[in-house]
Amino acid sequence: MLASTSYDAITIEKIAAQAGVGKQTIYRWWPSKAAIIVDVWAEVIAPRVAFPDTGDLEADLRAQLTRMLDVLAEPVLGLNYMAVIADSQRDERLAADLSARIFAPRIADTRDRLRSAQAAGQMRDDIDVDTVTDLLYGGIFFRSLFRLAPLDRTQPDALVAALIQGIGPLR
Amino acid sequence: MLASTSYDAITIEKIAAQAGVGKQTIYRWWPSKAAIIVDVWAEVIAPRVAFPDTGDLEADLRAQLTRMLDVLAEPVLGLNYMAVIADSQRDERLAADLSARIFAPRIADTRDRLRSAQAAGQMRDDIDVDTVTDLLYGGIFFRSLFRLAPLDRTQPDALVAALIQGIGPLR
Repeated sequence: MLASTSYDAITIEKIAAQAGVGKQTIYRWWPSKAAIIVDVWAEVIAPRVAFPDTGDLEADLRAQLTRMLDVLAEPVLGLNYMAVIADSQRDERLAADLSARIFAPRIADTRDRLRSAQAAGQMRDDIDVDTVTDLLYGGIFFRSLFRLAPLDRTQPDALVAALIQGIGPLR
Repeated sequence: MLASTSYDAITIEKIAAQAGVGKQTIYRWWPSKAAIIVDVWAEVIAPRVAFPDTGDLEADLRAQLTRMLDVLAEPVLGLNYMAVIADSQRDERLAADLSARIFAPRIADTRDRLRSAQAAGQMRDDIDVDTVTDLLYGGIFFRSLFRLAPLDRTQPDALVAALIQGIGPLR
C-alpha cells in the first residue's frame, strides 16, 4: 500500500481490510498508522538499502546512494517517505520511532562501512565517520526535502566523486 | 513572533493584533499564514545568511554554515523552519513559494561564491557547483530534519574540512 496509496489516504481501516482482519486486531499490535508504517519500512525497505561492502569504497558509496535515490524516486513511495519525515517534525514519538527503527540501523551500517574503508586505507582516518555520513545522505535528502530539482541518477556519482577527491584545488 | 511562538500557535488573528490592524487587512495582502511566514523569512532571516566573500573559500564556507546552524539552533525559530519545510511536503503552493523566495536566492548566492572560488583557483573547476551546494547544505539539514543529534557548532568546521580535502586517502 505504501507504494501505491498516498500516506494521507492510508487508513487503519484499509490496512485491516487488506489484511482480512478487524480494526481491533490491528490496534492490538500497533498504536497508530505511523507505527505500522515504521514497521513496514524497517522490514521491507531496509533490505533494499543495506550498505554493500565489495572492498571498493567509491563503488560502494555510489551503489548505496543510487539505491536510496531509487527508493526516493518511486512516485508514491518516495513522497510517502517525505510525508513521514514531515510528520515527525511535530510528533516526538514518531521521530523517536523513525530514529530507532529506520535511521539508526542505516547509520550504524554506514559507520561500519566507512570504518572498514579507513582500516583498508581507502579513507582518511583523520575524518570523523559521522561527518561523512552527514555529507553523504544530506546530499541526497536535501534535494528531495527541499524540492529543489527532480531526483537524478547522475547525482550519486557526482556527490561521491566530489566527496572522495575533495573540492579543494588539485594537489 | 517566529522566534517566540510555535508555528502552529501563530494565527492570522495574532499577527493582525500585533500589527494593530484588522484580519481583513492581512488577508488583503497575504492569502495564508504560510505566505506571511515566507515573506518574513525572505526579509528578516535572509540577510543573516547572506554568503560572505572574503576571498578565502574555506573560511567563508565555515562562516556560512555556522550562520545557518545558528538560525536552525534557535529553539523556536529553528523548529518553525522545520515545520514550514514539513508543511511544504503536502502543500505545492508553499513548496513553490519557499523555493522561489527562500531557497533559490540562497542557492544562487552559493553558486556565485563557488564560481568565484573556481575562478580564483580555490576550488576544482571539474566539480559542478550544484553538487557542492547539495553536500554543503545537506550536511547541515540532514541532522536537523532527521533529528539525529543536537546541532553542534563544531559541525561546520568538520563538514567543510572533509569537503575541501576529500575523504579519499592522502595523496
